[in-house]
Amino acid sequence: MGKALIIGAGGVANVVIHKCCQNPDVFEEICIASRTLDKCEAIKNKLTGSKTVIQTAQVDADNTDMLINLINKFRPDIVINVALPYQDLTIMDACLATGVHYLDTANYEPPEIPKFEYKWQWAYRDKFEKAGITALLGSGFDPGVTSVFCAYAQKHYFDEIHYIDIVDANAGDHGYPFATNFNPEINIREITAKGSYWEKGNWVETEPLELKRVYNLPEIGPKDIYLLHHEEIESLALNIKGVKRIRFWMTFSEKYLTHLRVLENVGMTSIEPIDFEGKKIIPLQFLKAVLPDPASLGPRTKGKTNIGCIIQGVKDGKPRTYYVYNVCVHEECYAEVGSQAISYTTGVPAMIGAMMILKGIWKGPGVFNIEEFDPDPFMEELNRCGLPWKESFAPGLID
Amino acid sequence: MGKALIIGAGGVANVVIHKCCQNPDVFEEICIASRTLDKCEAIKNKLTGSKTVIQTAQVDADNTDMLINLINKFRPDIVINVALPYQDLTIMDACLATGVHYLDTANYEPPEIPKFEYKWQWAYRDKFEKAGITALLGSGFDPGVTSVFCAYAQKHYFDEIHYIDIVDANAGDHGYPFATNFNPEINIREITAKGSYWEKGNWVETEPLELKRVYNLPEIGPKDIYLLHHEEIESLALNIKGVKRIRFWMTFSEKYLTHLRVLENVGMTSIEPIDFEGKKIIPLQFLKAVLPDPASLGPRTKGKTNIGCIIQGVKDGKPRTYYVYNVCVHEECYAEVGSQAISYTTGVPAMIGAMMILKGIWKGPGVFNIEEFDPDPFMEELNRCGLPWKESFAPGLID
Repeated sequence: MGKALIIGAGGVANVVIHKCCQNPDVFEEICIASRTLDKCEAIKNKLTGSKTVIQTAQVDADNTDMLINLINKFRPDIVINVALPYQDLTIMDACLATGVHYLDTANYEPPEIPKFEYKWQWAYRDKFEKAGITALLGSGFDPGVTSVFCAYAQKHYFDEIHYIDIVDANAGDHGYPFATNFNPEINIREITAKGSYWEKGNWVETEPLELKRVYNLPEIGPKDIYLLHHEEIESLALNIKGVKRIRFWMTFSEKYLTHLRVLENVGMTSIEPIDFEGKKIIPLQFLKAVLPDPASLGPRTKGKTNIGCIIQGVKDGKPRTYYVYNVCVHEECYAEVGSQAISYTTGVPAMIGAMMILKGIWKGPGVFNIEEFDPDPFMEELNRCGLPWKESFAPGLID
Repeated sequence: MGKALIIGAGGVANVVIHKCCQNPDVFEEICIASRTLDKCEAIKNKLTGSKTVIQTAQVDADNTDMLINLINKFRPDIVINVALPYQDLTIMDACLATGVHYLDTANYEPPEIPKFEYKWQWAYRDKFEKAGITALLGSGFDPGVTSVFCAYAQKHYFDEIHYIDIVDANAGDHGYPFATNFNPEINIREITAKGSYWEKGNWVETEPLELKRVYNLPEIGPKDIYLLHHEEIESLALNIKGVKRIRFWMTFSEKYLTHLRVLENVGMTSIEPIDFEGKKIIPLQFLKAVLPDPASLGPRTKGKTNIGCIIQGVKDGKPRTYYVYNVCVHEECYAEVGSQAISYTTGVPAMIGAMMILKGIWKGPGVFNIEEFDPDPFMEELNRCGLPWKESFAPGLID
């Protein structure tokens, strides 16, 4: 059916590529491109025997001209951006210049101060419309599936949605006292940043980790959950008409928070270089070298994730609560594609989003957040492609 | 009256020297010797105007011949060893070779595996007896004052002592989230080592920090206190006849333990070098470089220490409890001598022990632990020299 250029060769890209190869009728040909060709080749080598034809290419995703050359050479129908969020705009520019559809899983971030805002990408709406191509923003899990869950609830179960609580819980255990899946600097920023939620047309700011709950979630049990800012709140507030409050919650274990706080306290997360034996060393860089390699966590991680939405509103004049969620098992993901659930839950929806566009099910020129499209075909594919969802009208998540 | 050679130029040596200069009739002349002459000079320069005549010298305390040369040149009446515990034996050898009295504040340690045992130094008993000189072991606070407290209780208040609990509490606050007064490797070893106490003629081993109490101590209030092994238990078990149990307790705040555990968990206290940007770096060394300089803590530390003994036994056939303790104020110590209470409480008793020997109050050839001498004149000097003690027969320390 079509050709996809996948930019990135990390854990999420690995999942996207495996999933494309599981759907060779849709993804007849793909090209894996990243700064490091070896990483692209390594993924390709795991998929010998796939019906999908796989190419690889070296590309600097910060460099629009280089991206344009690659697109002109490979001629994809869609670019799946699973590189860094700093590179969303250069890749969107390349898609505009070449007339190719675009998809990503995380909003553009200016490198200096992450804002988790869509404004930079929404500014491309006119350009994409004029170019007659589609940009699908945030086609991961959260944002992504969680937003589709909201659109699905809206379409089938509510006359009006009033409250949305997005709950992202990871009960996985890698067996180390402490390790991070990604840059510990980003982890630190996450827990030291102010939280915010959307209520009655305004943002309400909270102190870092000020709001905490214990949710007793299906299949993983009670977990400490903290309110954070998250990017999909911004788009859902626009697209779910009548909504009064949207909040995002994420699990952090006490142990994890303690480790991060201590490391911050003693200065090990600082990015200010110190003089050490005649050399300038950034403490955070040294800490990363001491901590387990994130790549080593995949095969060790056991346990489940549970990500979903608790939606409250009215139907036929009566109040209703609807809970829709996916549970994913780290070790099953790893056995299937060689990445654990954090990457899996982001990569599968990216493939499905691309499938929706390639099949022409989701279409229209412009820049779109995922909840703007019909959720039903996406929800069907989730069940078929490894992220089955469950629903309940009496969730009882808080003891 | 006499001449003292002080080996060491750290925080404790600084206190010993200040205190000698406060007693110039006893300490007419002193020599400050350490590996780094500048540190000796720096202390000397703080004491211009002192009636005590001060010399300085460079010496490697691991080198017995160098020590002998220095002793032969300066001709002291006593050597006060406030260097490292690894150097006790070389200094004792030099005292034997030159016929000069010896005093220290901590038992000899083999550099590889600290054991907190007296056996190496007790093996010198015959040699010191034959040489007609005195070695006074453990004349700091604990060991030192705590052992004198026990001898004093034995002499005045008990027919038989049954139980001794030595309680070392530091309620000082340096205002940093985390810092160590000394080598964090030693701190780690302290909290990860098995504990032990002496009961009915045997050592009883505990898991690290297995036994915890909350003692509500005078002037500092309730504190978490953990049972540790400590060297004076070994000598008190020999010298306090009829004692049935001796335990040592030390405060560690939950915050302090949490920081140490996290740093250990992530590998920052390891002494195994890692490869970092083409260089071998020992994580513990890097951690030390990131943490506040221990030398910076003195002027910042506020609050009190409380170190004492809870002694239970019988007098005239009736059970009796006796509590004797000293409270020391960090900022007052710093104002007086430029070191906070941890160094102060160790350095003052070292000076008093040397005074006892120089005055001929404590005498006799051989190797002695401090509780073997008459406690009364030492107890008097504590009150006069900055470490006044208080006593109670109804302490009520446990709520």
